Amino acid sequence: MPSDLLSPAHIAQSLHSFRTRSPLVHCMTNDVVQTFTANVLLALGASPAMVIDPDEAAEFAAVADALLINVGTLTTDRAVSMQAAIDSAVKAGKPWTLDPVAVGALSLRTRFCLQHMSQQPAAIRGNASEIMALAGMSRGGRGVDTTDTAAAAVPAAQKLAQQSGAIVAVTGETDYVTDGERTLAVAGGSPLMTRVVGTGCALSAVVAAFCALPGDRVVNVASACGVMKQAGEIAARNGNGPGAFEPAFLDALYALSGEAQK
Amino acid sequence: MPSDLLSPAHIAQSLHSFRTRSPLVHCMTNDVVQTFTANVLLALGASPAMVIDPDEAAEFAAVADALLINVGTLTTDRAVSMQAAIDSAVKAGKPWTLDPVAVGALSLRTRFCLQHMSQQPAAIRGNASEIMALAGMSRGGRGVDTTDTAAAAVPAAQKLAQQSGAIVAVTGETDYVTDGERTLAVAGGSPLMTRVVGTGCALSAVVAAFCALPGDRVVNVASACGVMKQAGEIAARNGNGPGAFEPAFLDALYALSGEAQK
Amino acid sequence: MPSDLLSPAHIAQSLHSFRTRSPLVHCMTNDVVQTFTANVLLALGASPAMVIDPDEAAEFAAVADALLINVGTLTTDRAVSMQAAIDSAVKAGKPWTLDPVAVGALSLRTRFCLQHMSQQPAAIRGNASEIMALAGMSRGGRGVDTTDTAAAAVPAAQKLAQQSGAIVAVTGETDYVTDGERTLAVAGGSPLMTRVVGTGCALSAVVAAFCALPGDRVVNVASACGVMKQAGEIAARNGNGPGAFEPAFLDALYALSGEAQK
Repeated sequence: MPSDLLSPAHIAQSLHSFRTRSPLVHCMTNDVVQTFTANVLLALGASPAMVIDPDEAAEFAAVADALLINVGTLTTDRAVSMQAAIDSAVKAGKPWTLDPVAVGALSLRTRFCLQHMSQQPAAIRGNASEIMALAGMSRGGRGVDTTDTAAAAVPAAQKLAQQSGAIVAVTGETDYVTDGERTLAVAGGSPLMTRVVGTGCALSAVVAAFCALPGDRVVNVASACGVMKQAGEIAARNGNGPGAFEPAFLDALYALSGEAQK
Repeated sequence: MPSDLLSPAHIAQSLHSFRTRSPLVHCMTNDVVQTFTANVLLALGASPAMVIDPDEAAEFAAVADALLINVGTLTTDRAVSMQAAIDSAVKAGKPWTLDPVAVGALSLRTRFCLQHMSQQPAAIRGNASEIMALAGMSRGGRGVDTTDTAAAAVPAAQKLAQQSGAIVAVTGETDYVTDGERTLAVAGGSPLMTRVVGTGCALSAVVAAFCALPGDRVVNVASACGVMKQAGEIAARNGNGPGAFEPAFLDALYALSGEAQK
Repeated sequence: MPSDLLSPAHIAQSLHSFRTRSPLVHCMTNDVVQTFTANVLLALGASPAMVIDPDEAAEFAAVADALLINVGTLTTDRAVSMQAAIDSAVKAGKPWTLDPVAVGALSLRTRFCLQHMSQQPAAIRGNASEIMALAGMSRGGRGVDTTDTAAAAVPAAQKLAQQSGAIVAVTGETDYVTDGERTLAVAGGSPLMTRVVGTGCALSAVVAAFCALPGDRVVNVASACGVMKQAGEIAARNGNGPGAFEPAFLDALYALSGEAQK
């Protein structure tokens, strides 16, 4: 199955739709990336909120426009809250997105992710090792890092999309986004993005937010990937290293989103 | 009830008092803003510490100069620890400040905040929707964002101050600080502050710290608001977007506090 | 016992060994410094991962190259997970490093740290008050800050090293690293490092990572301290205050590690 390249015009159109809606995004994510995730969504003009008590998570998932579930620092308590939020989102017809951090290698998160594959995730975003592990085609990467290329994981992504009904994004030097039939490729970005914690996790939050948009979800999820790659390229031009990269990346997102023109 | 504008001279005087004392501030805050909150207090010359085990929280609240309670990512476990810290602070005569994030819309935090209104908070800092919800005059905002202007919430702030005995700060484009009788207005700031996560939460930590100062608490709390607005204006001048804004904001606080001159 | 000054050649040699190995570091650290800790390790070319569920923590500690235990926001739940990780690391022959934040003053963390002294920590990194408290020679500092100089704590560090078998680093204006016999002094750094949250905690993570290197562990731990002091000096030159310091510090680590030349 060959893939098509996502066009800049598609990205611009999805971004326009995004900033007119300013989605309210319920982020249940890991302890390491909460601040960066919130700042990425704010720079793009969305409204992030992190709510984690089981009862409150259920209440909030029903009113938010989208839900992100990231298992990076999963605990049994947090799994209960995430379960409540997913149930509530599904019942209310709100899209939820899974970031299966380090799935395959560690037991609690692997059980949790596999259990929730039947609950109609709107999207799944992971690196090659994670997507291959979730598709049952490998045992995971090295810690939170992948040991495979994204291109090598495209068949696994397509299989996972067909099994789960989700749009699957497998990201790396090039990102691939698929519904199991059609596959879009997203080029660009910067190697510096792998030296700043949370760029992948924040991308999953952006994917979750773009799932709240109307229209073609494969294109919307690929556009989320495209926005992050464009901002990464701009930020790498301005930055000397990963320290200067991070504020430059947020400013690039802010400029791309049109927030700077307001 | 008309409000008076806080003068720059008041802000300078409170800041001088602040930096000669370097208050030790016990911050029990949400998972998203811990780092930024600590960095804001450090830039101003205070000593922040986050302690969350119930026994340790009680021990530390008794020796710290001030306590911050922020319910942004409240859980039932954390509520127990916060309760222990508040009890200990009250017993030791130390001021505690409440940031009622998203109160009204979500159940656990609403119960928690209402329960602790009788425990003599020194200050309460929130956006318009939060202050109106806590005063029983609305049902809360959109996620963590307000759906009302601060000016519209001044009557609610005054009512809440009278009920609780706390100094109430309702913040927005202009901040209003009241003890229920006198109301001070604090102008300035930058819209970019709403695109960086934690500026409101960090302001609550600064309010908590300024409650450790001697003298007129309405003026001290308003000065805390004024310092943050001044730094926001300076940072917005230097910054291109929310990314560059954050380090520029910390540097502005550091310069305002006189730390740069040491 | 006099101390020798660590040479820049030693630091360069340890850094070279570090970047050819890119250690996988299991960080169990406090809620406030997770992002900065991860970014410091990434800038140096290591692979950090935070895993906190007890079962997963045991699984991951056995495969990671090094383990960091930081008790800054310890809870009884987290203590159980840390115990599982330490047991697993010891069994697998992997080095673990303790950062005894605010030990002495607060009860849960004091019991936890003292209990684990018998489990062969590879290294212990703390400020003067913490090292003195852990050696039984004082009752701790002011919150998370020290009330003694590092030089005054050298005898306590030497005693603690002899008792525990760990390399002990007591850090401050000058850092001292000792195995109880030999003591190396590491000069440099910048006072701005005390105005950015997590520089000490991130140093402990770097110490943990350098414990994964072959060779003389006293020199390796002192080199970890030396790298951070060198980066601090470079960043203070470029920065206006603590805000600009942080990205400049990460960029300096990235440049020192040779990552920028790749």
